[in-house]
Amino acid sequence: MKENGLGADVVSEGEIRKAILAGFSPCDIVFAGVGKKESEIEFAIKKNIFCINVENEDELYIIEKLGKKYQKKVNVNIRLNLNIDVDTHHYIKTSKIENKFGIDIETAGNILKKKFNFVQIKGIHFHLGSQIKEVEPYIKGIETIKKFCQKNNFKPEILDIGGGFGIPYTYSDKIQDIEEFGKKIKESLKNFNLKTVILEPGRFIVGNSGVLISKILYIKKRKTKNFIIVDAGMNDLIRPSLYNSYHLIYPVNLKNGKTLKFDIVGPICETGDYLGKDRDFPENIKSGDYIVIMSAGAYGFSMSSNYNTRLRTPEVLVNGKNLKLIRKRESYSYLFDPELF
Amino acid sequence: MKENGLGADVVSEGEIRKAILAGFSPCDIVFAGVGKKESEIEFAIKKNIFCINVENEDELYIIEKLGKKYQKKVNVNIRLNLNIDVDTHHYIKTSKIENKFGIDIETAGNILKKKFNFVQIKGIHFHLGSQIKEVEPYIKGIETIKKFCQKNNFKPEILDIGGGFGIPYTYSDKIQDIEEFGKKIKESLKNFNLKTVILEPGRFIVGNSGVLISKILYIKKRKTKNFIIVDAGMNDLIRPSLYNSYHLIYPVNLKNGKTLKFDIVGPICETGDYLGKDRDFPENIKSGDYIVIMSAGAYGFSMSSNYNTRLRTPEVLVNGKNLKLIRKRESYSYLFDPELF
Repeated sequence: MKENGLGADVVSEGEIRKAILAGFSPCDIVFAGVGKKESEIEFAIKKNIFCINVENEDELYIIEKLGKKYQKKVNVNIRLNLNIDVDTHHYIKTSKIENKFGIDIETAGNILKKKFNFVQIKGIHFHLGSQIKEVEPYIKGIETIKKFCQKNNFKPEILDIGGGFGIPYTYSDKIQDIEEFGKKIKESLKNFNLKTVILEPGRFIVGNSGVLISKILYIKKRKTKNFIIVDAGMNDLIRPSLYNSYHLIYPVNLKNGKTLKFDIVGPICETGDYLGKDRDFPENIKSGDYIVIMSAGAYGFSMSSNYNTRLRTPEVLVNGKNLKLIRKRESYSYLFDPELF
Repeated sequence: MKENGLGADVVSEGEIRKAILAGFSPCDIVFAGVGKKESEIEFAIKKNIFCINVENEDELYIIEKLGKKYQKKVNVNIRLNLNIDVDTHHYIKTSKIENKFGIDIETAGNILKKKFNFVQIKGIHFHLGSQIKEVEPYIKGIETIKKFCQKNNFKPEILDIGGGFGIPYTYSDKIQDIEEFGKKIKESLKNFNLKTVILEPGRFIVGNSGVLISKILYIKKRKTKNFIIVDAGMNDLIRPSLYNSYHLIYPVNLKNGKTLKFDIVGPICETGDYLGKDRDFPENIKSGDYIVIMSAGAYGFSMSSNYNTRLRTPEVLVNGKNLKLIRKRESYSYLFDPELF
C-alpha cells in the first residue's frame, strides 16, 4: 500500500507505531478515534503525523496544551456527526446523532469561533459507517459540510470523507463502481478549493485480499443437522458470531457430485462458535480435508483472540506462487510469558 | 482453586498446559471439547490426564490408535447430546440436537457395543448450556442418562454433569441456592453407584470475582444522548457487544446528587463498542475519574483481543489490602514480535 502512494488512517498509538514500522512516513498518517488518550495524542505530536481528527472539544484543549509543550502547530480536522442514516448493520452505523462519534454541527460551529495558538483547524472529517455501496450518502455528507462551512465562514483545506466502501461478501452482493464513485465525488467537490481530500477505504482494499484456511477435524452427521468441525473458531474470525456476517466457504479441493447441508463450526466451547450455517458441501467431505473461508482480510486476524487458550494463526503473504510468512504462529511460551504465576 | 481441592476442566492443549503450569495435577484434569486436534489428544494422553470427554465416534478411534502407540489405557466419558432445551441466550445453549456438541443417544448406544483395547469408557458427560439457574434441567438430564444406561446395560463409574450454573449480573437476577442444588442432585444420584461425579462451575466461581477498571477519557453531552468515553473497549470485554450482556457499571468514587443517563462506550472504531447503555451516572462525572465494570471475571480477559492494535490489560489479584500483579500489561514490542516485516 505504501509503495502505491497510500497513507495510513489510525485509531491508536499502536496503529501509529505499526504504520511507522511498516515504513509509512508520519506525514502520511491521520489519527482518528473517539477515545484518544492524552499519551496517545502526545505520541502523535512527537512523531509529527499529518493531522489529528478531533471528535470533541476537550481533545482540542489537550492538543493546545501539548502543542505548547512541544512548541508545535498541530493540524486538526473536526469530525462532524452529520446525523445521516445509512442502510447497514446497526453496529457499523457511525454517523447518527445517537452514535458516540464526532461533534454535532452546533457545537462544531462554536468551536470554530475559538482561538487557539497551537491547534490549526485545517478541515473537516466525516465517516458514515461501513459496508456502504452507494455514492449518494457521501454526496449528501459533502453538501452538508459545504453548508456548514458557508454558515460558519470556514474555508477548509482538508476534507476527509472517511471510508466504509462496501465490499461483496457473496456473489449477489452489489459491487461499487469505484471510478463512477470517484467521478461523482470529484464533481461534488468542484468550487470547494480544497488542498487535500482524504479517504480511508480499508476494508475495500484488504477485505477480499485475505482468506482463512482451516482443517476439518470431524464430520458429525445427525438426522436433522450435519456439522463440519474445523480447527478455526470464533477466536480466529468473530464476524459470523458478532455481526451474523456471511462468509463464503469452500472445500480447498473442489469436488463435483452430490452435496449435503452442513453447519461449519469451530472447536470453541460455545454454540455461537460457527463460521457458516446450512452450507452446501460435498457429501463425501472428510476429516483431514481443508476449507477456505473467503473475505477474511478485514476484521479477521485484527479481531482475533486467544479465547480457550488457543494460539492465534500465522499469516502468510501470497504473491503468485511466492509464499512469505509475515506473522509467526504463536507459541505457548509467547502466550504465557506475560502471566506471572 | 487448586488449594481448595478443585481440578480443571479444559478444552484445548493450551488449557491443559496452563492448568499444569498453575500446579494442577494431570490426574485432576478433564479434557472436553467438540474439536480436539489429534495432536491435542496425544498431548493429553502423554500427560496422563484423568479423562477425555468424547464428542464423536471418530475421537474414539484416534484415542484407540494413540493409546496403542503409548501402550496406555485411556479413560473416556461419552458426552451425550440430550436434546434438552434450557431458558438461556441462544448462543450458550449447548444441548439441543441442532447444536454441535455431544453424541446423540442412538449413536452413543451403538458406540457402547464396540470393543476397544485402549479406550476405557468410564462414564457419561452432559452439558446443558450456560447461565442456568434451576436444578430441574440437571435432574432431567440425570434421569435421561439413567434410562440410557439401563437400556444399554452400561454401568458408569463417572458422571460429569457439566456446568452452566448461572450467576447474578444484576440485583434482580435470581441466585441459585447451591446447597439446595447439591442436595437435590445427590438425591437424584441415589442407587446410581457412581465412583466420581464431576462438575465444572467455572463462571460460578470466577464471574463475580473479577471487575474491569477503566478511566474516563471524555464526556460527550448531546441534546438526545450523553456518552462517557472510557479507555476500555470491546477488545477488553466483548460480552455486551457479542451477547448483548448487561454488566453493572459504577463510578469508582460513588457520589450523591443528581444523575443523568449515559452510554458507557469505548475508544474502538465501531458503534458496537459499548459497555453499557442508558446508565445513571452523576451529572458531574468527569474525565480522569475511574469506573468499575462488574462481573468481568468470566469471559472477560479470556476473550480479549488486540483489536485496533490495543495492548491487553494487566491483571491484578486483590486479597484484602494486598495487590499482586498476575499478568503484565502487554508492551508494543511483545505485540509486534511475531510480525515479520
